[in-house]
Amino acid sequence: MKAHIISIGDELLIGQVVNTNASWMAAELNKQNIDVSRIVTISDDADDIRTNIEKSMAEADVVLVTGGLGPTKDDITKKTLADMFHSQLVVHQPSLDNVTDYFAKRGLPLSEVNKQQALVLADCEPIRNMVGTAPTMWIERNGRVVVSMPGVPFEMQWVMSHHIVPKLVSRMGHEAIVHKTVMTFGIGESFLSDKIEPWETNLPTNIKLAYLPQAGKVRLRLTAHGNDKNALIALVDKEVEKLQGYIADNIYGYDDESMESIVGRLLLERGETLATAESCTGGLVGRKVVAIAGASNYYQGGIIAYSNDIKHQLLNVPEETLQQHGAVSSETAIAMAEGCRKAFQTDWAVATTGISGPDGGTDENPRGTVWIAVAGKHNTIAEKFVFATTREQHQERSANQAIFSLWLQLRQSK
Amino acid sequence: MKAHIISIGDELLIGQVVNTNASWMAAELNKQNIDVSRIVTISDDADDIRTNIEKSMAEADVVLVTGGLGPTKDDITKKTLADMFHSQLVVHQPSLDNVTDYFAKRGLPLSEVNKQQALVLADCEPIRNMVGTAPTMWIERNGRVVVSMPGVPFEMQWVMSHHIVPKLVSRMGHEAIVHKTVMTFGIGESFLSDKIEPWETNLPTNIKLAYLPQAGKVRLRLTAHGNDKNALIALVDKEVEKLQGYIADNIYGYDDESMESIVGRLLLERGETLATAESCTGGLVGRKVVAIAGASNYYQGGIIAYSNDIKHQLLNVPEETLQQHGAVSSETAIAMAEGCRKAFQTDWAVATTGISGPDGGTDENPRGTVWIAVAGKHNTIAEKFVFATTREQHQERSANQAIFSLWLQLRQSK
Repeated sequence: MKAHIISIGDELLIGQVVNTNASWMAAELNKQNIDVSRIVTISDDADDIRTNIEKSMAEADVVLVTGGLGPTKDDITKKTLADMFHSQLVVHQPSLDNVTDYFAKRGLPLSEVNKQQALVLADCEPIRNMVGTAPTMWIERNGRVVVSMPGVPFEMQWVMSHHIVPKLVSRMGHEAIVHKTVMTFGIGESFLSDKIEPWETNLPTNIKLAYLPQAGKVRLRLTAHGNDKNALIALVDKEVEKLQGYIADNIYGYDDESMESIVGRLLLERGETLATAESCTGGLVGRKVVAIAGASNYYQGGIIAYSNDIKHQLLNVPEETLQQHGAVSSETAIAMAEGCRKAFQTDWAVATTGISGPDGGTDENPRGTVWIAVAGKHNTIAEKFVFATTREQHQERSANQAIFSLWLQLRQSK
Repeated sequence: MKAHIISIGDELLIGQVVNTNASWMAAELNKQNIDVSRIVTISDDADDIRTNIEKSMAEADVVLVTGGLGPTKDDITKKTLADMFHSQLVVHQPSLDNVTDYFAKRGLPLSEVNKQQALVLADCEPIRNMVGTAPTMWIERNGRVVVSMPGVPFEMQWVMSHHIVPKLVSRMGHEAIVHKTVMTFGIGESFLSDKIEPWETNLPTNIKLAYLPQAGKVRLRLTAHGNDKNALIALVDKEVEKLQGYIADNIYGYDDESMESIVGRLLLERGETLATAESCTGGLVGRKVVAIAGASNYYQGGIIAYSNDIKHQLLNVPEETLQQHGAVSSETAIAMAEGCRKAFQTDWAVATTGISGPDGGTDENPRGTVWIAVAGKHNTIAEKFVFATTREQHQERSANQAIFSLWLQLRQSK
């Protein structure tokens, strides 16, 4: 089954609102093996609405339209639909009750404009909106489906989850699609591509591969098409197993689980604790750790040691170390991680110290340099990286690397 | 001038990635009075790419295409463009130097696949990518412009800001446009709208107003159209001055300068220093402070006191305070801020302690509660907020509020 999504709204075309509706819908449809092949955003303009719906009806089985159903005058979707389908607008009594209720409960007068929200196409299947006022219309023509639904995110999500997705699934044939995403870190897209080339070349023809890079991570998404879902799952699992032979040290997880979540789970399973010591990342490692609900079970806290004085006073980095080797050095990173582990009495500590720029680079330590150290029960390691990007990207990459380095140590200490 | 945006990428069609590129571009174009009338998302498929570019070239003056330029096999945009424009791909030497440099600096070997990134259409105007490897192509045909640029957000933003938008503006007519953005915090969109209603109603007809809300901030963008740029600037300034009469305590800055940057500038001017003490925000306040280049001139660092033990040990919050009032209380927030100011010997310290959820709420302190304290030379203030949103949004709102509260205190202590 092939679907198009049409988002109507001037606020999307001037960049005032990000189109999260379309990505939410696409993700939900994708889970049900419904293939979204186009997402279009257009304005509240009758010609645009008509042309785009007609075009999509020629190319897709299902056309999902959001927006343009509010009571204000820029919303003309319903009239346009009535015209193009040679239908007329009639009152949908349950929706009128809905609107009447809504205003009565809030003690507000019901205007003519508000009553118009209860109008629907005479020959559609109307769906009453239980979380708002504008009804959804399910329209069928020549075996194609057009759905017009509200653009308010939680109203759209409600009607999609409760009505539209179940109705679409019940109409579908039996082709199966299986996805698996392999999460890699620490190897650039092109090196990764070179390294796994023999594997990629020999992938079965019904498996497609996509590279999705982001700040040091590359997600590899396998998509398999076929008839038998279980056979596809087995096929994909077999290929992922083969892939592990090529890049075992770079695969930290699967299916969009974040590194922070995986590290958190490992710590929780082992009953171990973590603290952070950050210079150049200024709290970003901590921020990523606490993004996971329940982090308080293993994360004690951290020290943001942005100045040298604080590195010495709160993390016990010896003044000689800072003077002899500098703040951006293996020695300082190690002392920070060990000092942090001691101050917080945790099993693990991770430290970052580097030069995010734009200023502050030297010949020995150019802008982009970062030292990352991980201290554990048995040893402390430190590694140097150079991420020659913007300040923001450097901080993001360094924080991701810190968590990846911690994951590597956690894995090795099993 | 009419523009279409075409976003290429399967990751967008399966909802794995939200299309923030399109909204960023639309907002930038809108500022320049370039009208975006369609945004289309399609897959890495030659036919789709071709059909959509051709369709858009028939309807718009400018077609902006993002994505599909990476070194991996799923990226076929360039070949498709060469075919459809009856052109061929040739090496763009500055881009090859760029790619070569990029890999040399990182001590990495240069593969054939990487070299292909330097290929461009023979008769395009290539634009060297100074923040990545894939060049941008500016293609003109029959008075229409097609731009193919990278899909990596910061690479796209860089080339749009430095090259594409200025080139488009220089092609346009002579109507003058003046923008000014007023940055407000701490007042919701609808309250703001009520409060400034008399001002908004009396705005000159050639000034348009847009509300752009985000995590506690509402940016108010004024856009003035006319013939005389200087007269427009004067007109807008006069209206902004009037606006200050309505919401003086909520305006922290102008033209998208971040609160972190404004706070940093104030501290720098006064030669004062800052430290942070964070519980629920876990480093996010520090992370925002160090996002500003040169933060080391005023930011000493911070303590992420996620556990109560750490609040006591490193920030000297008395055990009685924690027991009697709890970790989420005015007393603890004040003790954290004061303890932090003392530990780091700074002029200012800001503290956060709250319940981001999803668990941990109580009757007295429901999920979403956060106490924020600011300690200065003369006094310490603490204020309670309830942001009943997701964990991530709560952390974001709380960190923004912490910086805003600091800004209020800085302003008052002048």
